[in-house]
Amino acid sequence: MTFSATVDQKPFAAAMAAAARLAARRTTIPILSHVILRGDAAGALAVSATDLEQALTQTVPCAAGAAGGVTAPAAPLAAFAAKADAGEPITLTMDGAMLTARQGRLRLRLPTLPLSDAPIFHDLPAGPDWEVDAAPFLERLKAIGAAASTEETRFYLNGVYLDLRQAPVMVATNGHILALDRLEDLTPPVGAPGVIIPNAAVTALPLVMAGQKRLDLRIGGERLAAQAHGLVFSTRLIDGRYPDYSRVIPADTPRAARVKKTALLRLLDRVSVIEEVDKESNNARIVRLTFSPGELTAGVKNRDGEESADACAAEVDGDEQRMGFNVAYLRAMAQSLSTASGDTLELRFSDALAPILLTVADDTPPRDRQRLRVIMPIRV
Amino acid sequence: MTFSATVDQKPFAAAMAAAARLAARRTTIPILSHVILRGDAAGALAVSATDLEQALTQTVPCAAGAAGGVTAPAAPLAAFAAKADAGEPITLTMDGAMLTARQGRLRLRLPTLPLSDAPIFHDLPAGPDWEVDAAPFLERLKAIGAAASTEETRFYLNGVYLDLRQAPVMVATNGHILALDRLEDLTPPVGAPGVIIPNAAVTALPLVMAGQKRLDLRIGGERLAAQAHGLVFSTRLIDGRYPDYSRVIPADTPRAARVKKTALLRLLDRVSVIEEVDKESNNARIVRLTFSPGELTAGVKNRDGEESADACAAEVDGDEQRMGFNVAYLRAMAQSLSTASGDTLELRFSDALAPILLTVADDTPPRDRQRLRVIMPIRV
Repeated sequence: MTFSATVDQKPFAAAMAAAARLAARRTTIPILSHVILRGDAAGALAVSATDLEQALTQTVPCAAGAAGGVTAPAAPLAAFAAKADAGEPITLTMDGAMLTARQGRLRLRLPTLPLSDAPIFHDLPAGPDWEVDAAPFLERLKAIGAAASTEETRFYLNGVYLDLRQAPVMVATNGHILALDRLEDLTPPVGAPGVIIPNAAVTALPLVMAGQKRLDLRIGGERLAAQAHGLVFSTRLIDGRYPDYSRVIPADTPRAARVKKTALLRLLDRVSVIEEVDKESNNARIVRLTFSPGELTAGVKNRDGEESADACAAEVDGDEQRMGFNVAYLRAMAQSLSTASGDTLELRFSDALAPILLTVADDTPPRDRQRLRVIMPIRV
Repeated sequence: MTFSATVDQKPFAAAMAAAARLAARRTTIPILSHVILRGDAAGALAVSATDLEQALTQTVPCAAGAAGGVTAPAAPLAAFAAKADAGEPITLTMDGAMLTARQGRLRLRLPTLPLSDAPIFHDLPAGPDWEVDAAPFLERLKAIGAAASTEETRFYLNGVYLDLRQAPVMVATNGHILALDRLEDLTPPVGAPGVIIPNAAVTALPLVMAGQKRLDLRIGGERLAAQAHGLVFSTRLIDGRYPDYSRVIPADTPRAARVKKTALLRLLDRVSVIEEVDKESNNARIVRLTFSPGELTAGVKNRDGEESADACAAEVDGDEQRMGFNVAYLRAMAQSLSTASGDTLELRFSDALAPILLTVADDTPPRDRQRLRVIMPIRV
């Protein structure tokens, strides 16, 4: 086994931090807690990790060319790199089956496993790159991911569906809430399918790609890959059929209430000082909303006799309407609506038990808006 | 039951936050999760809580005089006060057995219990006040408390011993480490005894009294009380005999090493990227130190073959000496030494297995210094 490299502390620490996040911390299979270090053809150091579902490779420039390859425990090497002095090089050398990382008197010696033990990294999907602006794409992925299910029985809902069959759409639902963003500014490659990105990758992608300007996406072979400067992240896709989400979006919502996003979130926060739990809805914490002319009131009351209430200004069509909601869902969906285009949310509804449509208020027909959120009420 | 008060949001929220911290959150005895609200003789509102060991009363000024008294669940009322608008008054009124807190449209209604159900608050200990500067007293209490035991078998070590028999001393030990501060600038009342302040109060006092300038301490009847502007905190004392701590402080430490506090802490941090666990010492994480002319090296090595090492400059008397320590204890004791008087720590030792003396280096004889820390080595 041969390996050597000399790297700058900063990029190596960044690459190791991301690799350590992906590598398993407690596992009975030692290799899954390891990072894979490999000199690439250009003499740079490729730092890779995988949990068999996701895989990440980052390229770190080397003063002297990196040569050979090895695997080593990710967590201590990442901690070492983070605690080493900034601006000073770190040397990595082998001594038999041991890897030594060194910076001045600071030294870490770790047992290794041969490169041949490392899990297989899938080749990048074939097919054309789809280049997107990183920040808005990742923000939307995160926002939509808030509606994804985590129940294993409906595994195909445990992620974000990127529907590329027509104008691209990102959507997620857990059966109680649905979040949908139209990616009208993006043009996917012709013939790209719809894919379900698993929750773990929905969480990891924005972390791994933070600070990047552009992403090259590639889809195929049940995998999605995202590439950026010196970074390749790929994930297995969920192998399932995503349900017809368009049927969940209520068509008939004759009434509307408009309220400031900050006022709504503040209302929910202030009445949540006590808990009202609905045993039928999986112990959801409930909030009761009352829409009435000129205002929205919120309240919670529980079996201990505790009651809270607050009100804020709202533009409300028609007569008084009372509805109950899972407060966590209502808050998450309101928060997931970016309000760069304005601070006023529109809640559209028909009666107390029909799903409501939550959007940023604008002049287009509600169902055509760029960002749609659907929330099922709870009977109170 | 009658009660009413109008209070400013800010002082009421602060008083409620401290009361809620003390009140039990989950308890089968509802009254222990309640705050006690009571109009005092001057028309101010007294906000009290107790966990039967500790008790706290804070006085909040009232616009209209507070009248009567009641108890209510502390946690929701504290959350309400924190989330209410700053600068606006909060009114508290009774409606049958329910307490309503109101600020504009924001409202919280809580069930109450009669004042007669509230736990008994002990009278303040009789005897003279002992006035101390709050910040240095509380900082020392916190620093010394880091050495206290939490093992129930030796309950008399589960706190900080305030020895007032001669020149006052604060001391704590868990049998492996000992921390002692001489309070040379303080003059306790004549005839004051030595008292053991329990860990819970050692933690609570600095939180409750944060920002106060002076504390009036009073000791007696198995209780200690601390009073400051609008605040009375009292705690039961540990009813036990504190061991003769002076015997633990090593008299014979012929050799010394001097090292910068920041360099020592950095050394410990950097070699702790891997763990070496000593099963005989309750799974303590070990660090190995080697004192040699001009430098101190630290290292960790474990059964997985992992090894870390680092070194820093140190002034060392005599030949090489190797010792092992519980890294958490060594770090805690070094951190607990305030270094306002200088950044250099002195470690005094005789051999690898005898307790070491850790102090801030100065010109006085080591055992006479104001702050002493003792640490038992681990055989490595």
